[in-house]
Amino acid sequence: MSAMAAARLGFRPHVFGPEADGPGMQVAAARTVAAYEDADALHRFAAAVDVVTFEFENVPAATLAALEGRVECRPGLKALSVCQDRLAEKRFLESVGVPVAPWRAVHSPTDLRAAIADLGLPAVLKTTRMGYDGRGQAVLRAPADAEAAFARLAPHPLVLEGFVPFTHELSAVAARGADGSMAVYEASENRHAGGILDVSLVPAGVPAAAAEEARRLVARVAEGLELVGVVALEMFLLPDGSLLANEIAPRPHNSGHWTIDACACSQFEQHVRAVAGLPLGPVSRHAAAVEMRNLIGPAGLAAWPGFVARGDAVCHWYGKEEAREGRKLGHVNLLRG
Amino acid sequence: MSAMAAARLGFRPHVFGPEADGPGMQVAAARTVAAYEDADALHRFAAAVDVVTFEFENVPAATLAALEGRVECRPGLKALSVCQDRLAEKRFLESVGVPVAPWRAVHSPTDLRAAIADLGLPAVLKTTRMGYDGRGQAVLRAPADAEAAFARLAPHPLVLEGFVPFTHELSAVAARGADGSMAVYEASENRHAGGILDVSLVPAGVPAAAAEEARRLVARVAEGLELVGVVALEMFLLPDGSLLANEIAPRPHNSGHWTIDACACSQFEQHVRAVAGLPLGPVSRHAAAVEMRNLIGPAGLAAWPGFVARGDAVCHWYGKEEAREGRKLGHVNLLRG
Repeated sequence: MSAMAAARLGFRPHVFGPEADGPGMQVAAARTVAAYEDADALHRFAAAVDVVTFEFENVPAATLAALEGRVECRPGLKALSVCQDRLAEKRFLESVGVPVAPWRAVHSPTDLRAAIADLGLPAVLKTTRMGYDGRGQAVLRAPADAEAAFARLAPHPLVLEGFVPFTHELSAVAARGADGSMAVYEASENRHAGGILDVSLVPAGVPAAAAEEARRLVARVAEGLELVGVVALEMFLLPDGSLLANEIAPRPHNSGHWTIDACACSQFEQHVRAVAGLPLGPVSRHAAAVEMRNLIGPAGLAAWPGFVARGDAVCHWYGKEEAREGRKLGHVNLLRG
Repeated sequence: MSAMAAARLGFRPHVFGPEADGPGMQVAAARTVAAYEDADALHRFAAAVDVVTFEFENVPAATLAALEGRVECRPGLKALSVCQDRLAEKRFLESVGVPVAPWRAVHSPTDLRAAIADLGLPAVLKTTRMGYDGRGQAVLRAPADAEAAFARLAPHPLVLEGFVPFTHELSAVAARGADGSMAVYEASENRHAGGILDVSLVPAGVPAAAAEEARRLVARVAEGLELVGVVALEMFLLPDGSLLANEIAPRPHNSGHWTIDACACSQFEQHVRAVAGLPLGPVSRHAAAVEMRNLIGPAGLAAWPGFVARGDAVCHWYGKEEAREGRKLGHVNLLRG
């Protein structure tokens, strides 16, 4: 989706990645199919492009490090490194005044017992790296769950997070330009199924003050990371109306896909504009409401023809090879009014 | 733009054409760079794809003929042939009850003198093939202009068209599905500069009855051509409120580019839907008004940064190599309300 936004602005995206048939490869003007560790390929890539961005925060930091200094990277290594490590992420969020749930670093079973004593149960034990879509985490409900969860989750260290009795999950997406300018979209309300984002609703069904606070928090994150590009912040809304940050994604985010069809300038176009040094675009919404539904696995595949036949659904299919269980294959934006 | 619409629906467009770096090539999942006359390349292409369409009615009919029978072609040879020949086009339009300006076929200077005597002057002498953007035509104001114009314009035969004292130029775009279903967009009002489309406005600044009649006429054309895909009809509005057809384009049309950003389903997505056998999409407009401005030649290039910085402009740049005078390099959609 970023490559298409770039093409529409006249750029010629060159996609680097290990999968020859990935969705981005299918619409790229140029392609390098290589491992993230292939230094020669990275150097050739750096020489072939004007600016580098990424769409996947699990790109190895060493890959970006091999590019930085050779070519402008937006976002840079700082944002990537913070977002690849849950401990660094939590420390960063606290440092910029964005509240998070209580947490403890867990290097050992002893740490875990102490953390449970501090935070109470239930609590959520998470890997610090490579977690997404609910992978790499375990809910601990009783002390007896702790040892097996510690053994199962890898790599260590882990992090224990206090259980947050939230009423809603929200996220907001901000774009930050090379000149520090900022464009922040409305917050969306997100509903998950099986740990995977299922639906995002805009406007969010929460008090306006909470939705505005969500926008302020993601802006603070973008500033704090000195990020050039797009960043999303996932948050929990508590019964008292306050927000806790859950996770940062330093890239266009699934919960911002509603912007493609409900806004004149999508999160993908904002990302391209920021990375290319263009002025940011507007964030206003032209549909009275929009519901973004993910199409996941075989059930998502089965639902596709029905959505294609609906007059109110704008349909996006990613061109992935296999409809595996749990895999995001596409999404639809249902526009109202 | 069609290739991107196809990619978004999960298709893998394979672009065939003579230019390695054409705009469509830059976003295609697969590419065949070959001459339209390369029979081997056409046969390999036919074997590689499920369905063929075209975006340029000056593709040689022989090229489409080499594909038909090997693979489904939508639109087919009938629509292409009618639209490649102004005489066939006028006969077709009259046959389906779509009025055109008075015209005469001109095979010789003698024909031309007789035609001038019939239609009067001024009149417009046009090539019957390969004309677009005002090329291949001459306005005759005096009998003395006739001989030089006949000699200059080629190939023969030509056609002389009576001068039409129109008040507005309109066009409308229809999509017709493989099942005969139809989706017709609102008519646009078109303003030309130097024979090239400059601006399209929706809603058109004409009486509602004329705008509705424009939609009815393009639907009649789509039916009459038994076209599967998208077709545009350019029309003149006369002072008495009646419409005369000027030209058919059996493909997404420049005057329909407003649909990309002002509608949930653009003319390009309709084209892909029709060609792929999917249900057609909605044609409703979500912006109160839209102005499509072409970016043409060096002046268009110079205007680009200003439009990119405007909050109300959705910007499209085609990625053509050179900003030659008279060349359409991109367009912007200015959305109001």
